[in-house]
Parts: sequence; C-alpha cells; structure tokens
Amino acid sequence: MDYSSKEYFDKMTAWWRAANYLSVGQLYLKDNPLLRRTLKPEDVKKHPIGHWGTIPGQNFIYVHLNRVINKYDLNMFYIEGPGHGGQVMVSNAYLDGSYTEIYPEVTEDETGMQKLFKRFSFPGGIASHAAPETPGSIHEGGELGYSLSHAVGAVLDNPEVISAVVIGDGEAETGPLAGSWFSNVFINPVIDGAVLPILHLNGAKIANPTILARKSDGELANYFNGLGWEPFFIEGNDSEKLNPVMAEKMDQAIEKIKSIQKEARLKTATDVVMPKWPVLIVRTPKGWTGPKEWDGEPIEGTFRAHQVPIPVDQEHMDHADALLRWLKSYEPEKLFDAQGRILEEIREIAPTGDQRMAKNPITNGGIDPRPLIMPDWKKYTLQFEKPGSVKAEDMTELGKFVREIIEKNPENFRIFGPDETKSNRLNQVFKTTNRQWMEKIEPENDEWLSPSGRVIDSQLSEHQDEGFLEGYVLTGRHGFLQVTNHSCEWLTLC
Amino acid sequence: MDYSSKEYFDKMTAWWRAANYLSVGQLYLKDNPLLRRTLKPEDVKKHPIGHWGTIPGQNFIYVHLNRVINKYDLNMFYIEGPGHGGQVMVSNAYLDGSYTEIYPEVTEDETGMQKLFKRFSFPGGIASHAAPETPGSIHEGGELGYSLSHAVGAVLDNPEVISAVVIGDGEAETGPLAGSWFSNVFINPVIDGAVLPILHLNGAKIANPTILARKSDGELANYFNGLGWEPFFIEGNDSEKLNPVMAEKMDQAIEKIKSIQKEARLKTATDVVMPKWPVLIVRTPKGWTGPKEWDGEPIEGTFRAHQVPIPVDQEHMDHADALLRWLKSYEPEKLFDAQGRILEEIREIAPTGDQRMAKNPITNGGIDPRPLIMPDWKKYTLQFEKPGSVKAEDMTELGKFVREIIEKNPENFRIFGPDETKSNRLNQVFKTTNRQWMEKIEPENDEWLSPSGRVIDSQLSEHQDEGFLEGYVLTGRHGFLQVTNHSCEWLTLC
Repeated sequence: MDYSSKEYFDKMTAWWRAANYLSVGQLYLKDNPLLRRTLKPEDVKKHPIGHWGTIPGQNFIYVHLNRVINKYDLNMFYIEGPGHGGQVMVSNAYLDGSYTEIYPEVTEDETGMQKLFKRFSFPGGIASHAAPETPGSIHEGGELGYSLSHAVGAVLDNPEVISAVVIGDGEAETGPLAGSWFSNVFINPVIDGAVLPILHLNGAKIANPTILARKSDGELANYFNGLGWEPFFIEGNDSEKLNPVMAEKMDQAIEKIKSIQKEARLKTATDVVMPKWPVLIVRTPKGWTGPKEWDGEPIEGTFRAHQVPIPVDQEHMDHADALLRWLKSYEPEKLFDAQGRILEEIREIAPTGDQRMAKNPITNGGIDPRPLIMPDWKKYTLQFEKPGSVKAEDMTELGKFVREIIEKNPENFRIFGPDETKSNRLNQVFKTTNRQWMEKIEPENDEWLSPSGRVIDSQLSEHQDEGFLEGYVLTGRHGFLQVTNHSCEWLTLC
Repeated sequence: MDYSSKEYFDKMTAWWRAANYLSVGQLYLKDNPLLRRTLKPEDVKKHPIGHWGTIPGQNFIYVHLNRVINKYDLNMFYIEGPGHGGQVMVSNAYLDGSYTEIYPEVTEDETGMQKLFKRFSFPGGIASHAAPETPGSIHEGGELGYSLSHAVGAVLDNPEVISAVVIGDGEAETGPLAGSWFSNVFINPVIDGAVLPILHLNGAKIANPTILARKSDGELANYFNGLGWEPFFIEGNDSEKLNPVMAEKMDQAIEKIKSIQKEARLKTATDVVMPKWPVLIVRTPKGWTGPKEWDGEPIEGTFRAHQVPIPVDQEHMDHADALLRWLKSYEPEKLFDAQGRILEEIREIAPTGDQRMAKNPITNGGIDPRPLIMPDWKKYTLQFEKPGSVKAEDMTELGKFVREIIEKNPENFRIFGPDETKSNRLNQVFKTTNRQWMEKIEPENDEWLSPSGRVIDSQLSEHQDEGFLEGYVLTGRHGFLQVTNHSCEWLTLC
C-alpha cells in the first residue's frame, strides 16, 4: 500500500468530507440524514447546540492519525483537547464501524444515521462534547487546560502507546496547559510511551483571536525549542495540497518518536537522557469548509465559526437553503451507498479492530488493568502498652506502608505531587524508589532523582500533577496525589 | 554620582550584607540582635520558622533596584513572587528607614532591631511572608502563580510606574505563571507602565531542582524570545564580580523600557505595536552566603537551603557556634553604628521619600485613588405596564449601564475576562470602548480589538484575568471579572 499516493489521499479526502458531513448533520438535523427528500422543518432540530469551528481541522487530523496507525502499525489513541467539538470522535467512530459495535441500535445505514444525528446534543441523547459515553475518550475537554497532562499520564508505564493529543489554541492560553509543556521532563522513553501533541492553531476562540496563532512560525519554533520540543509546522486551507504536506510531517514526527524509543531502549531506563519529542503545529482555518460568510461578515477562518455558524432551526427555516448548500457541498451521495453506509472503498482506509482509536483498550479501563496489591497494614501498626510510650511520626510510618505498596506494584502504581513528598515526611518511599526526572541531574546536590522512578513530584504544579494522576488512573492504574499533610495534622490533633 | 564606581558597588555590598544579616537575625534571634554580648539560649527563638534560600538573591536584586531608582529617577515598586521570604521586604524597608516611619516603635537602634527580630514569624508579631502589614507589598506570594499577573494589573493606567517582580524558579513551573508570560500582549506602552520581570533561578525548590534552572541559557533565550520578551542573563556567586555585571544588565533593561516608552509616546495609544520588553534572568545560589554544608551535606546552592538551614533553637544550642559564625560573617560591627543604626555612608545609597519601594504610594491604596463615578441606574430600568409586555435581555440591558460606567471613568475602570464578554452579551460596552490587544490585528476578521481599550478579555485564562484584576484594584482602581452569566441565569429563572 502506498500511503502517499494520490489514490490514498483521495480516499482520505473522501473520509474527511464524510466526517465533516456527519458533524454538520449532528448539529442541525434530526431526520432526513442523507437529504434524500426535501428538507422539512421537522427534519431540523429545534435548538441546534454545539460547536463547528474546531471540527473540520480535527477531522483532518483524525484521518491523518488513522493513516499513520496503518502505515506504522501503531497503538495510538485520541485526546480531544477542544472536547466541546464532540462530533469529531463520534463521526469518526461511526465511520470506522466502532460506534455501531458499541451502540448496535445506531446501525450503519440511513436509519442508524438518523438516530446518530438526532441523539447528538439532544434531550436523552449524547453530550455535545467528548463525554464518558463517547467511544475512545478519557478526556472531556470542557475544563480547558488538562489535555496534555492527561495524555502524558495515560502513557506512563504504557511503552507501546502513543497518545495523540489535539490542543486548541484557546486551551494553549490557559495556565495549566502552558505549564504542561514541562511534561517532557517526566516521560521516560524506555518504560513510558509517547505523546504526540498537535497544537491546532485555527486562529480564534469564542470571540477573539488567539495569541499563539498571531505569532510567527519563527516565534513558535523558539518557544517550543526552548521548552525542549521539536516543532513541525503544517499550514494550509486547501486540503488537496495539504494532504501530502501533513502526511510528510506526520511521518517525520512518528519516525522521530520511533527512533527516540529505539535508541533509548538499547539502554536501561535509568540510563537515558531527555529526548526532544516532536510537536505538530497545524494551522487550518476555523470552520474550514463551512459557510464563507453570513450577513456580510466572514465566517470561515474567523471566530464567528466557533459555535453554530448560520441561524437555521425548526422554527427558522428562511435560510434552510444555505444549510442545504453547505451539507451538499460534501457530496454525501458520493460517500454513502444506497443503504446509507460509508462506501467500502472509503471505509477500507480505517484501522481495524482495537487499532481504531475509538476502540483502543487504553480508553476502556486500560490495556492490562490489574487490581492494586495491598500489603497487610497490620504489619505497620505501632506496638505500645500505654498511650505516649512510643514516639513516632504519622507520615513516616505511613511512608513505610506506601513503600511496600510500591514494591508490590512496580509497574502500575505511582505517586504524584508538587514537591511535597519529602517536606511532608513521606520520604520512606525513597528507600525503594526515586523521583522520575529526565533533565540534568547534579548528584552532589540532588536527592533521589533518576530518569526512572515511581514518584513524579519535581514540578511545582498541582494542575500538572492532578492531570498526570487522572490520566494514569483513568487508564487502569493506581496512584495518589501527595500534596500537604494539613488534613493529617487535623486528624493528629483530634 | 558614579553609579558604577567601585566605591558605589562597595556601599551596595555593605547594604546587601546588612540586609542578609537582618534576614538571618529575624529568623533565629529574639534578643541580643547585634551580638554585643555572649549569645544565650534566651536570645534565640524557640521555633525559628521561615525561609532562607530565596533571601540573599532577592536582597541582591533589591539593592540593585534601589540603584536604578536613583540613577534613573524611577517610580518603581517591588513584588516578591517568592513571598514566603518575608525578611527581604522587611529588612530593606528597615534599612532605608521606611519601616520605622510606619512602625515607630521599631526604632533605628539596637532596641528597635531587637523588636524587629523578635516580631518576625512570632506569636503576636508579623508574618514570615509578605503580608498586608509588610511595607510596600500588594502581593502575598503564598499561593504561587500570580506574581506577574499582579505586577501587570498594577501598572495598567499607571504610565510612570515600573513594577519590578521577582519570580522564583519554583513559581515559574506553575500553570498560572507559565500562562502569565502572555501578559505582554496586554500592556500598552503609551497609557500603561511597565513590568520588569526578574526570573530568579536559584536552582531548587523545596526538595527538588527546578526545571528552568537546569535549562541552558540558549534554551531560555529561545523560550523568552518565542514569548516576545528580550532576555538579559546574569549569573554568578561572587558578589564583587557580579555587581558590575548586574548593574550593566539592569541598566540595559531600564534603558530598554525607557526607549520603548519614549518611542511609543510619540504616537497615540491606538497607534502602537507590541514592543519586546526586557526580562532579567538571574542565576545566583540558593542560600547564597549561608552555611556551606551541614552534617556532611552541601547547603548553599542546594535545596537544603530552602527553609531553616541549620538546627539551632533555644533548646538546641549545641551548634550555636555555627549560627554565630554565619551571622558574624556579615561583620555587623562594620555595618551598624554604636546605637545600632545602619551607617550613614551605607544608608545614603537608599532612595528617599516615596521613591523607596516600601513607601511607593501605589502599594498603599494607589497613586491617585478616586472613587468610582456611578451613573444613575434608574435610567436603565425597563419601563413596562404589565409583566411580559417588554422583551429584553438582562445582560444587554446591564451592558448599557456598564457602558456608561466606562464613559464616566475612562482611566480607572476596566473589565477583565476569559473571552466571555460577547458570548455573555455584555457587548454593549463595545459601543464605547475596545479590547486592549497588542498582537497583530486582522481588521477583516477581528471585532473590537485595539492596542488601547478598557476591556481585557483576549486571553483564555481565568488565572491571568483574576490576577490582572487583583493587581488593578489593589492599586486603587476599579473593575470586575466577566466570566459566565450562569448565576444571572439562575436569577432570571427565579
């Protein structure tokens, strides 16, 4: 298979058109999903609620991720930072068949498509954002800031997995996200997997431009190089021309990840230095392929594409022709067969089985979830005959117990925190493990640092630590956040 | 006066030693402040509680800020990001006389110094961190992350002021701080003042190294250039050698600020482009000049200098000799006169009057605080005869009222928010003002953007917006945070 042939790119373009079609359909329609009869008011939702702006760029990225999964036989899953664009994950899961496997009532035909459209952002249906019921999701994307932290937490101790994480240029302005670029200090290329951050600069947020999108490629290259990431730039608004560029850069990024891992894995986990992981910076128009303008104002490529770009609903059908033109611009009749199923020649470029991102086991409880093996806590009780006869510190004694938890669960238990482990006297754990830290180590000054260790507490950021922990436990492992022992103090005094 | 003469630098070194002496004294002693008699247990605090690591580097920065205030006749104040090192602001305020002006009982003599030492971090005394009672403070520094946001908020609409803000390398790892480097997008060089961020890389936090300190100057230069700041590097552990270097770079930074402002102020506020403001990056050892080692482990230059570096207290006097050696290393007998007052030849390098950072009016209610002029709200009530006869939106009507507040208070009222002003329908305000935004503007795509405007809502970061607002109102102005109108929704439905 030539993954860079015109034929293959044409199939990808068709897939992208289909995903965009399904995404707009979910936003506006509740019936007549393939427009095979005249559009009537009752075919249209009463209150179309959802987002359009982020969708087409993400659909473009998604089909390119599918391509590299096939080409490089990857174990990859998807984190949708701009998770309010919930149609992305739903549409692509529907196109690759996994949605129907999980929700058999949503069949791969016109009837199923009607159900899919109607249920989106609808009472009794599914959320308009990535939600627990969304196949392949572990990240909601509503509270912006944590997409990269979640992506990193998920691949710790999952050396074969790559988390592809789309970060919107709105989210990139939040504190938690800006601080999470320091993640690369904590990913060990031997024992952990990789993240592929994809910074999606579509140029605008709710009603404002975005800061990073207005910066030049040169400034962004400086920013990411300074942070220790290697940036790859992709920019365009013509998908035909952009496909080969995106494919080439995506290939370079994946090959970079593979070569980092290959080289590192010739060594032991404690013997590697921090690699320069790739980051993709993708500039595509907000609301790409959508309405060019409305009421004399530009829509595509501007903040106005953010949510529902043209005002059509069941009770306002004056401009239904504009909605129809938009939907028909994707030429659904060339994408779906008589039954309403995606054409086999398009479908065949999807990954299969659990390689489909919507079905990756890591997003459904984990790749190899195992219960936590707990030591016998009674071993760690203090023995005394009368109160006050033994002096001991609560956190020090707890640390001995936690140390054995670490020993009994060497690959699926971690402690995260903002540099409080020692000051809170949990340092008994360092008798059996270290802090994971990939930056330079100064043995004469530093304590318990190593490229590989079960404690990650070397960034002073509760946001990052909490994000790591969530990503780690949502993918079937165990851990806790070590912050302050103030509550223990209260317990002690009670 | 030659501000770069050996004589001047020697006075600065003496000041620095005095500030360090006072800082250690506050930590450990409650009597015998000048060690003029043998140290007895009752001279030492029972529980020395506070921080040492950040202090000497900050004292070094402080005396260099004093130097440029004199040399360039500046209106500058100090924000102590690592605010847990409260001795910095107290010691320097005591040395320049402002502490005694504000707290007359703390006289400039041995008796006053004894009171100063005893009250620090002591029951009934003053906090161990920058606190409301600390002269010249508007920033606490306990909840790390907001120092730069506060510094920027304070100088908005204060065109003559420079806020010198020391940012610790621990704080620099937090999300809010990492996101606050985008501040330069919102500072107008005509109508606003300037910030001088001083990133203090002392290398370690509580028990870990810091991420930025382990990066090379080249990486840091990339990072800051990418963010649109111009970095100036200063590094050393020999104060004699470092004084001329620090002075030269500090001069360059101040001259840069002045030239940016001079050039910009030849134009109007709406006609300027985003300048590249300076940032100082200062590498000095943590716990500089303190104990070199303890118990076979290095202290100076490591995380072990963070809090109380050697274990001496009233009930543990075995190592009192080490504390004495440390205190006497500053040679207090050469710094203070017979009464215990700082020698006049040292004192004379301090700024005077309100140019002392501890006395800057901006930190005491504002430079020219004026009450908010409120329009008559009754003008904006809806007139109707029976319920339901008039249809209007709450936020739109409120926006008309807020618009008049802006018009009546054109220089001391601002609205901050994370890009919610329009989506929450407060956009009536844009009939009278714009969003302040110094990055590129694309008039065909953007709405209500201008280099100068009373709304700052173009960064999607509640942390930054709240920090700006706090800095703005703590310096005697008015404003509010525009986030979501969810609570209005509840009100509406009630």
